[in-house]
Amino acid sequence: MSNFQGLLREIGSLSGDLYHKDFLLTWEKSVDELRKIVAVADALQWLRRGNISTRCFESGLAVSIFRDQSTRTRFSFFSAANLLGLGVQDLDEGRSQIAHGETVRETANMIAFFTEFIGIRDDIFLGAGHTYMQQVAAAVEEGFKAGVLEQRPYLVNLQSDVDHPTQSMADLMQLKNHFGGLDQLRGKKIAMTWAYSPSYGKPLSVPQGVIGLMTRFGMDVVLAHPEGYQLIPDVVAKAGVSAKENGGSFKVVSSMDEAFAGADVVYPKSWAPYHVMEKRTELLRSNDTPGLKELEKACLAKNAEFKGWECTESKMKLTRKGKALYMHCLPADISGVSCAAGEVAASVFERYRIPTYIQAGFKPYIIAAVMLAARFDDPVKLLRALKRRAVPRA
Amino acid sequence: MSNFQGLLREIGSLSGDLYHKDFLLTWEKSVDELRKIVAVADALQWLRRGNISTRCFESGLAVSIFRDQSTRTRFSFFSAANLLGLGVQDLDEGRSQIAHGETVRETANMIAFFTEFIGIRDDIFLGAGHTYMQQVAAAVEEGFKAGVLEQRPYLVNLQSDVDHPTQSMADLMQLKNHFGGLDQLRGKKIAMTWAYSPSYGKPLSVPQGVIGLMTRFGMDVVLAHPEGYQLIPDVVAKAGVSAKENGGSFKVVSSMDEAFAGADVVYPKSWAPYHVMEKRTELLRSNDTPGLKELEKACLAKNAEFKGWECTESKMKLTRKGKALYMHCLPADISGVSCAAGEVAASVFERYRIPTYIQAGFKPYIIAAVMLAARFDDPVKLLRALKRRAVPRA
Amino acid sequence: MSNFQGLLREIGSLSGDLYHKDFLLTWEKSVDELRKIVAVADALQWLRRGNISTRCFESGLAVSIFRDQSTRTRFSFFSAANLLGLGVQDLDEGRSQIAHGETVRETANMIAFFTEFIGIRDDIFLGAGHTYMQQVAAAVEEGFKAGVLEQRPYLVNLQSDVDHPTQSMADLMQLKNHFGGLDQLRGKKIAMTWAYSPSYGKPLSVPQGVIGLMTRFGMDVVLAHPEGYQLIPDVVAKAGVSAKENGGSFKVVSSMDEAFAGADVVYPKSWAPYHVMEKRTELLRSNDTPGLKELEKACLAKNAEFKGWECTESKMKLTRKGKALYMHCLPADISGVSCAAGEVAASVFERYRIPTYIQAGFKPYIIAAVMLAARFDDPVKLLRALKRRAVPRA
Repeated sequence: MSNFQGLLREIGSLSGDLYHKDFLLTWEKSVDELRKIVAVADALQWLRRGNISTRCFESGLAVSIFRDQSTRTRFSFFSAANLLGLGVQDLDEGRSQIAHGETVRETANMIAFFTEFIGIRDDIFLGAGHTYMQQVAAAVEEGFKAGVLEQRPYLVNLQSDVDHPTQSMADLMQLKNHFGGLDQLRGKKIAMTWAYSPSYGKPLSVPQGVIGLMTRFGMDVVLAHPEGYQLIPDVVAKAGVSAKENGGSFKVVSSMDEAFAGADVVYPKSWAPYHVMEKRTELLRSNDTPGLKELEKACLAKNAEFKGWECTESKMKLTRKGKALYMHCLPADISGVSCAAGEVAASVFERYRIPTYIQAGFKPYIIAAVMLAARFDDPVKLLRALKRRAVPRA
Repeated sequence: MSNFQGLLREIGSLSGDLYHKDFLLTWEKSVDELRKIVAVADALQWLRRGNISTRCFESGLAVSIFRDQSTRTRFSFFSAANLLGLGVQDLDEGRSQIAHGETVRETANMIAFFTEFIGIRDDIFLGAGHTYMQQVAAAVEEGFKAGVLEQRPYLVNLQSDVDHPTQSMADLMQLKNHFGGLDQLRGKKIAMTWAYSPSYGKPLSVPQGVIGLMTRFGMDVVLAHPEGYQLIPDVVAKAGVSAKENGGSFKVVSSMDEAFAGADVVYPKSWAPYHVMEKRTELLRSNDTPGLKELEKACLAKNAEFKGWECTESKMKLTRKGKALYMHCLPADISGVSCAAGEVAASVFERYRIPTYIQAGFKPYIIAAVMLAARFDDPVKLLRALKRRAVPRA
Repeated sequence: MSNFQGLLREIGSLSGDLYHKDFLLTWEKSVDELRKIVAVADALQWLRRGNISTRCFESGLAVSIFRDQSTRTRFSFFSAANLLGLGVQDLDEGRSQIAHGETVRETANMIAFFTEFIGIRDDIFLGAGHTYMQQVAAAVEEGFKAGVLEQRPYLVNLQSDVDHPTQSMADLMQLKNHFGGLDQLRGKKIAMTWAYSPSYGKPLSVPQGVIGLMTRFGMDVVLAHPEGYQLIPDVVAKAGVSAKENGGSFKVVSSMDEAFAGADVVYPKSWAPYHVMEKRTELLRSNDTPGLKELEKACLAKNAEFKGWECTESKMKLTRKGKALYMHCLPADISGVSCAAGEVAASVFERYRIPTYIQAGFKPYIIAAVMLAARFDDPVKLLRALKRRAVPRA
């Protein structure tokens, strides 16, 4: 962790404007803005470790809407809100009840009278999650401007069909700490690769988030997957553009070995193909249960052709000096532990188990930093005041 | 919103005693007490808008018991408790488990050791909800007197079979703001009318709450519904008495047009007839599923005879200068939007959509004001101290 | 309640080390440590009754994991955490999902980044609950040492298969208040007896907790149950040893009358036999529904042979001067009230109803004291500072 004064100087030196903005996709933010979030997260960690309270709300709500299961993100969101002094209330709506356009508009306002942030996970339906977040944002924007809401609640994407920015930003902090600074990422090779799993239908947002974000920091990003396991084309295209603009590289390969070769970082993780997720979305929408079963069966059979896409010890040997950093958003499918055969060999995972836990541990700080930067015009001033106030946290 | 000092003067000038009292029915409160709640709500809004913390509890609980679904009231209760510094815990009991007399007495105490307020929604069974709240109140009264509880938790009716006082009080604030003061309500005509809905079994508490409250403020209250859609007779009788005592008027008519004619305010909303709710309660109690289905079918057929009871543009033209304030407790059944044919035409609703959101937004302040007045002997002193303390909320 | 300065002196005079320790079994703690927890609980009550805030966390979480239903313990845990300033988040996991060893290790860390305490109820599977708590403790210990967690969360046993220490400690406070001090317990006879219930499968943790704890304080503890209703042998053996070491006595009898004879305190409560719970655990694990039904049937038939084991007025007459203190952890099976025939006659229960509520009311203070003592090295200094700070709670 960096020196506190240095962090304040860094935050102050960065341009960009996070104030009064939603946080939906990392590629909507400038590199400076992303750096600023990381630095604020670091500063919050510095204060908390020094037992200095970072409470900056005496009252106010953070509302979470989970349209898919969650444990770690749920706790991260709660922890982040609590760190700043906010109460958390979960909106536990049936999916259908808030699916309708009119209702989204109304519900968004009804839960937001005293709400500072709305965190949403909606990653099941391709083409739906990000759109839903935009609708909620538009609704509270309208409500705030019309005097319905006392404040504009800012949206925090807790995983959509497109991006999982609080995850990828936590991943970025892990890389920063591992390599000793964001500037050290330039030229480092990261292999974001598909891996075999005995389940299907895992969201695309993690690999999309990783290629979308790491290409912004000059890394050599290699995306690897078997034929037919494409991500959303637009997102992949954007990663290519980002790499060019930021002095890194991006390529897509169809071999795990090729991706691992000389890699400084590997991120082997299963996902469902883009076109399968589209089909699945259609079937889910039409409640076609037999169709869904058939799709699952076909997909699992297809997956089974690629059991070799496992992060084994021998694959790890291909990486830079055999010592690449292994990353995972958790939970991983660990061969012989959580399943017969999965994404990663037990011995590899065990060696990197604690680092993956540490990686996950950045998420509450990232979410708190996103909140703080969206809500306070001058984070430097606020952080300095918190340090000077020096109220013990415990 | 009024001037803060003016509000304090007003609160100080009003008689009546809200301290250490439950809040179950508006007609158990004097007009001065109701005015005081509104003024305290206004003062809390003034402070919050000035970013002044209104936290007056360092610890303590507000417990909610929802025996029927709720989104907006749930969030309003949470928001109000949070505004004052209380934690919220929901008692998620099966209905049967706490239905028994002995258990109510015990459970009420077990959830209340550190509890300042208990908010209850229980509106499904006619003759049950209000009684249940009284039982809980009696149980915690006994527990407090016997030294079981550290404090007497006060009850907040979040909708019973009889009244929905936090809703009607929020409605009153909407009227106050619309007409420029509670004193301006005198002689204004409000049409509380039944409206067609393709569902059945909606509670009576909103129309009962509105006629029970608005007659206290000298309004000309007209209740309109088709033959056979009566409210609880006692409540209707009480509205008549209130009108007389407070210099307004109250009548019941069987034509939406008659109610709308020259009205300053219209509140078109569906409800189930009193005698149907009684029958439904019996059937629910005896778990008579076929009987319930039959009743629903008969009621929907009956409802369908009154599709003309819709708040259309032409009906709105009948109101005072064609510009009556449209009110609804939300969610409304909007024709062509949330249903094929419903309570209100889409164009009418859209014109008043934002005002209905604003109307809903008064609820957290009303609940917070009810809490504050029940718990602090001298609200003026407390509010003045909060302003002087001037801790920023954010 | 004792004098505050006296309590501080008492706490200061007691040896033992609760700091940075889990709280799983009372017999893992020294008598001095148990006395210290009671004294801290008393001091917290003294402060709260004096309207002095005991908030000692500006942020931080207390996480609860309920693998069995709970109302009173859930609210007690929430209340205790809130009293100290912590937010509460419940981990609502399916049993299967966190049953696996690897997953326990991971989940324990994922919910604990900012978590100060983890409270667990897991009392259904014999041989499982205590083990699970130990696994969670080991996982967060590893996570803390490895730098995953910002702090070591301490475990609070909210009922396991072995002990229910927050209940038995609340019971101890009830006895302390009833007899005028912990030193007054020496030589008092307490009858922990089985009682008839029309249900089966009630956990053993309450009777085990009571005989395990009260033998530490020199009481004459008599455990009574019909043949075949044994508790876990190890726990019973330990109670015998404790009695010897602490100058009291312990015996097991097979007659309720014998236990009640001359008793100062009676605690009549149903439980399932140890060997039945073992069998039930096997059947639950193998999802043997017919086997479970058969077991239940056999057990209820067996229970029915012992309907005479009811705490009636005539049984109460056998106690010391006919005025023993009746205790129960609630809810009780009250004959003619909550069931046709049960653990206690209605007239007996009614006479002691309020005392049982008061008994339950010590639980939030006990939990808060356990938390405070686990987290702050010098409780005397902290409590003195809280009193001096004198921030009003309300």
